Amino acid sequence: VTALVLVAAQLSAEPPPIRVRTPMRIPDIPGYVTVKADLHIHTVFSDGSVWPDVRPEEAWREGLDAIAMTDHIEYLPHAEDLPPNHNRSYQIAAPLGERLDVIVIAGSEVTRDMPPGHLNAIFISDADALDQPDWRDALAAAGEQRAFVFWNHPGWSGQQPDGRTRWYDEHQELVEAGLLHGIEVVNTREYYPEAHRLCLEKKLTLLSNSDVHAPSNLDYHVHAGDHRPLTLVFATERSSAGIREALFDRRTAVYSGEMLVGEERFLRPLFDASVELLTPELPLSGEDDPALVQLRNHSDVTFSLRRLEQVPGLTLPERLVLAGDRTSLLEVEAEVPLAGPRDVEVRFEAENVKLTPEQNLVVSLRFRLVAE
Amino acid sequence: VTALVLVAAQLSAEPPPIRVRTPMRIPDIPGYVTVKADLHIHTVFSDGSVWPDVRPEEAWREGLDAIAMTDHIEYLPHAEDLPPNHNRSYQIAAPLGERLDVIVIAGSEVTRDMPPGHLNAIFISDADALDQPDWRDALAAAGEQRAFVFWNHPGWSGQQPDGRTRWYDEHQELVEAGLLHGIEVVNTREYYPEAHRLCLEKKLTLLSNSDVHAPSNLDYHVHAGDHRPLTLVFATERSSAGIREALFDRRTAVYSGEMLVGEERFLRPLFDASVELLTPELPLSGEDDPALVQLRNHSDVTFSLRRLEQVPGLTLPERLVLAGDRTSLLEVEAEVPLAGPRDVEVRFEAENVKLTPEQNLVVSLRFRLVAE
Amino acid sequence: VTALVLVAAQLSAEPPPIRVRTPMRIPDIPGYVTVKADLHIHTVFSDGSVWPDVRPEEAWREGLDAIAMTDHIEYLPHAEDLPPNHNRSYQIAAPLGERLDVIVIAGSEVTRDMPPGHLNAIFISDADALDQPDWRDALAAAGEQRAFVFWNHPGWSGQQPDGRTRWYDEHQELVEAGLLHGIEVVNTREYYPEAHRLCLEKKLTLLSNSDVHAPSNLDYHVHAGDHRPLTLVFATERSSAGIREALFDRRTAVYSGEMLVGEERFLRPLFDASVELLTPELPLSGEDDPALVQLRNHSDVTFSLRRLEQVPGLTLPERLVLAGDRTSLLEVEAEVPLAGPRDVEVRFEAENVKLTPEQNLVVSLRFRLVAE
Amino acid sequence: VTALVLVAAQLSAEPPPIRVRTPMRIPDIPGYVTVKADLHIHTVFSDGSVWPDVRPEEAWREGLDAIAMTDHIEYLPHAEDLPPNHNRSYQIAAPLGERLDVIVIAGSEVTRDMPPGHLNAIFISDADALDQPDWRDALAAAGEQRAFVFWNHPGWSGQQPDGRTRWYDEHQELVEAGLLHGIEVVNTREYYPEAHRLCLEKKLTLLSNSDVHAPSNLDYHVHAGDHRPLTLVFATERSSAGIREALFDRRTAVYSGEMLVGEERFLRPLFDASVELLTPELPLSGEDDPALVQLRNHSDVTFSLRRLEQVPGLTLPERLVLAGDRTSLLEVEAEVPLAGPRDVEVRFEAENVKLTPEQNLVVSLRFRLVAE
Repeated sequence: VTALVLVAAQLSAEPPPIRVRTPMRIPDIPGYVTVKADLHIHTVFSDGSVWPDVRPEEAWREGLDAIAMTDHIEYLPHAEDLPPNHNRSYQIAAPLGERLDVIVIAGSEVTRDMPPGHLNAIFISDADALDQPDWRDALAAAGEQRAFVFWNHPGWSGQQPDGRTRWYDEHQELVEAGLLHGIEVVNTREYYPEAHRLCLEKKLTLLSNSDVHAPSNLDYHVHAGDHRPLTLVFATERSSAGIREALFDRRTAVYSGEMLVGEERFLRPLFDASVELLTPELPLSGEDDPALVQLRNHSDVTFSLRRLEQVPGLTLPERLVLAGDRTSLLEVEAEVPLAGPRDVEVRFEAENVKLTPEQNLVVSLRFRLVAE
Repeated sequence: VTALVLVAAQLSAEPPPIRVRTPMRIPDIPGYVTVKADLHIHTVFSDGSVWPDVRPEEAWREGLDAIAMTDHIEYLPHAEDLPPNHNRSYQIAAPLGERLDVIVIAGSEVTRDMPPGHLNAIFISDADALDQPDWRDALAAAGEQRAFVFWNHPGWSGQQPDGRTRWYDEHQELVEAGLLHGIEVVNTREYYPEAHRLCLEKKLTLLSNSDVHAPSNLDYHVHAGDHRPLTLVFATERSSAGIREALFDRRTAVYSGEMLVGEERFLRPLFDASVELLTPELPLSGEDDPALVQLRNHSDVTFSLRRLEQVPGLTLPERLVLAGDRTSLLEVEAEVPLAGPRDVEVRFEAENVKLTPEQNLVVSLRFRLVAE
Repeated sequence: VTALVLVAAQLSAEPPPIRVRTPMRIPDIPGYVTVKADLHIHTVFSDGSVWPDVRPEEAWREGLDAIAMTDHIEYLPHAEDLPPNHNRSYQIAAPLGERLDVIVIAGSEVTRDMPPGHLNAIFISDADALDQPDWRDALAAAGEQRAFVFWNHPGWSGQQPDGRTRWYDEHQELVEAGLLHGIEVVNTREYYPEAHRLCLEKKLTLLSNSDVHAPSNLDYHVHAGDHRPLTLVFATERSSAGIREALFDRRTAVYSGEMLVGEERFLRPLFDASVELLTPELPLSGEDDPALVQLRNHSDVTFSLRRLEQVPGLTLPERLVLAGDRTSLLEVEAEVPLAGPRDVEVRFEAENVKLTPEQNLVVSLRFRLVAE
Repeated sequence: VTALVLVAAQLSAEPPPIRVRTPMRIPDIPGYVTVKADLHIHTVFSDGSVWPDVRPEEAWREGLDAIAMTDHIEYLPHAEDLPPNHNRSYQIAAPLGERLDVIVIAGSEVTRDMPPGHLNAIFISDADALDQPDWRDALAAAGEQRAFVFWNHPGWSGQQPDGRTRWYDEHQELVEAGLLHGIEVVNTREYYPEAHRLCLEKKLTLLSNSDVHAPSNLDYHVHAGDHRPLTLVFATERSSAGIREALFDRRTAVYSGEMLVGEERFLRPLFDASVELLTPELPLSGEDDPALVQLRNHSDVTFSLRRLEQVPGLTLPERLVLAGDRTSLLEVEAEVPLAGPRDVEVRFEAENVKLTPEQNLVVSLRFRLVAE
């Protein structure tokens, strides 16, 4: 920690700039831009602890593209000091978002007992209309505003005592009425496998959000490479309309810690766009030193690979970690000298990339060995 | 940055705890506890951007002992949403302060054109009494509450176009009326040499505060060893009463970046309590390798020393940096072999420790060399 | 990573000092000083890659107290360039060790097929005497020099194909002849549970060493709070003789990553010396906010505690992480208001502190709650 | 430092990979690849402290493309242990370089009193031929091998007591004989302005090298974004031949800390390739909030810009720091509302980019403001 503590020594002269945007390296995939979005955020206008304009500032610095302001409709612990105004957090945050080119989306959290629990409605035009005694009326109002609605933290122990996501008739009713479109598969770092399964089964959109209440730095080690849980949105354009269209079309993935969760049609191209083989061909003698396959990971996601098969005549490690934004080495040894060039393909399971609660993405690494 | 980015890889399993208090290593001095205080802080109740209870939480995590809540009386840009209530930021922050053992002091910032500019009154009992059309009435009300009053950012370019602290008759009037007790010599990392000189001349208390409006992590690299500007208070006890008594008795110093500013009676013992000579005696031949004097800096302050004098027969470096919370080496070479044991004393100027705007603390390092 | 990358911006002016010693905070225990030692180290004089004087320099910077130079007797891949000289790595390293106050111990690694495998003999006076065709003669020579001898990496897959430590008659023979005194329970971060069990059963000394060959920074993230595996030696004095006496008396523990391994008579006082309760008494109402028990961990070891029992009427978290060199919070909630003061004792299992391969240290936290 | 110290807590489970290559982001320029080279490196084969194969490993991890092995011919303090062999450091390092795709160049340091001082000859075929009693014979032998020769640390206080670079007749003689082609303008972070001027005057190649003797991590905070001094070589291909051709053609620049030194024909396109304007057009009202021009710095170099001129009707900051690998903001305020779209061009001096010892690069930032 030498250098870090000593930073302070330098600070007196002229401190390093702090109002900067750190790139979040998640590549686009063919046909889509990958929009990094946090669609569940609170402010002082419900039970959060920051003024709304802090949110686009944090998002800009952390490399995000979009946020949704989703203060509670029904839970307003600051109301004695701050008179309720359901539209204000969006109204205050939006102008700074525009100046910083961070997309700010208007939303509200309909906050009810289970069922149906807490639901976010985003892309709304008037939050006041959602302030209704009956939750069915609140969600109908969201529907009239053509909102995108998702179920929040469905396995939250506050509403699901055993921590498991339970699907109620009320949720089925909402889906059938076209009033529920997605589920948070991750909230505040917590992953809900049953919710993941439900999304696949019911054809709902996967979401992953921070549900942040405090300043984000108090909850996430953002200065040390950590990031809040995000919804990756595969959009045809980086805009509010682009995000909306993609959400309704279920083109999303979960990005939480080093975990990715989503469909193969998105996560395979994301892996392929991330990991580049720098050494398509490399010499290998049968004697001593292993050949060193270089793999450049252009994304910030660290991929943890486990080898699925033996390769006859070659010795390969069982595990391979491809650190984010680094080049890693795959060491290959020959048991006997090569007779001539040899094309190798090895399959690995990416243990941090979930397609279903039980199944991870399988990737192939291919390279050519030549006799030295 | 390898390890840091890769922290994320580990986070998915179980993220490192983030709600922890990082020690701020500033030693006590004989007779006093050294209280680390930030006495100028804003919240949403004036023009800040956090709910008041964020402030004791940040202070606890950053290793502070005490904070004062000092929202503006006259400048309330959120008033349209949040009805003015001058006492609320203290009322909301105090209970969490108590639970975390962070001392929270009630205050207000009287916010006027220059002269007299902006003044903080702390240890007040009712902020509403300071809401007066005439600033003289506001400060008289502070005086009736036996407040400690200091002049904020006296060289602020918003009120002093050339960036120099100008002393007005109004300030003299306040001092003579017993209604002005100190000046911020540092505000938001900015050091005002004229204010420093005025404090010495008029026997006023030196202060150094953050004047923080945003979440503190957005303004200071606290995660990397940086800290906000603080007032070090040399108190007979770590309590609100202890701080108050010390402030009125001018027992403070400035701690901003690596800079310390204050009187020799406090900063010499602080240096002495920080820096320990680990090798009081060490062998030295006249030939080759230098003797290595080990100096353990128990504080977080990095001291930058410049040698003031030659030592006959010895070669010593011109500069010596004693990194915070580290052991550093002073290399000593003999030009000719030692005849016998030799006691050495060398004087250095501590370039980061200001006694006056022009004069730094001079310290002596003493050790004994013995013939090898 | 903002601040870190930006450090570079400051470096051009005057880079932060790099030749500093970072404290390794492992407290002493009653009756003993806790000596941090790495007793298995290589240099260019066998198959390592640094000149011997790099080793005391690294050890000093990393906060170690003692190292043993243990180049291989029989494996000398650099011999074509560097003529064998078994005593040179110690001879070259020792003078810098003395100047830096790092204890450097002479040793050699007797490097044989299994059985008996690789054994380190330390505190030797002449390594040449250990260069013998027959390993029995080599170890007899070590015995004549009153060396302390331990078995290295006993579960190393290069000699134990299934990765399990197998005890051979030859080891038993050595123990009975008084020529084998300890086993590496950790080598290069690898923990061998069978070796741990054997140490307890045969009354042998526990060791934990790095076996470092490269510059230590290439193998360990020492700049980011990581450390190489170390043997903690509970000695009556910080000296070579003190270490030797303690090793023969089996007063050691393993310190690798955040794992401690050893006997309760050492690890309980080490925990007690590390963790201080800052809030022996604290108020608790039966309503809302939990009481916050503050626990200051004075060591660099992060303790991971799991609660072993319920406390009637109170709600406590199942897990508690006491981060190294930080203050952490234990949150306590009352299910009903307290009638009066209440003394609480809760037992936790320290999951990172192993007494046997199956059993962890159990610790009690005690505090008093008072009605608010 | 919370997150960093706590990394350790995670390490016990599975430590983050450490054998990774960290990208060094210095863009290519039109027509050339930018090769990052350290052309002055020592090993145990002269007065360095690592076995030669450590050097390509370090270079690979630190993101370098090429290194030259340049052990001293005449200064061999390890000779008693390690028999002299001038070609060995290259022979040992080259195979690992090849396997890691790091270009390793054979060289030697001809090490004489001043004049001519120390000179590196690189791209040599046999170092033994440079081992001559007379330095003129040594350099003639280098010439016969078609070596590229440069003068090392020309202002080193060991040979230039006043720290100034003095040009001797012997240097002129070498230049005229075609036996001296460049000068180290930076060595070990030290910049020699006279050497810079001499390079321009005599049409010699600018070099910047580490002259590293210890493991590089002991001299540079490479884990925290620091890097050793490097020669940037603008080559037509990333190969040994490509580097050689570019060196003889004087297509280089100095990269040390955040300082770049070189000719405008290279440093202007390097700046242009580094800094991208993300907001070519942006709205600006005449009232309140400044427009925020976003500048993405794709390089790791932090550029420190000082504004050279006023822009009528607009308020702009005097200084602008473009942090490496970040997006920074230029704040623009209008003194009166814009009448219509307005194209703005502002010139800044890049204080960290030296064209001559007295003159820095001047860059223009251009953007369009539109009335809101």
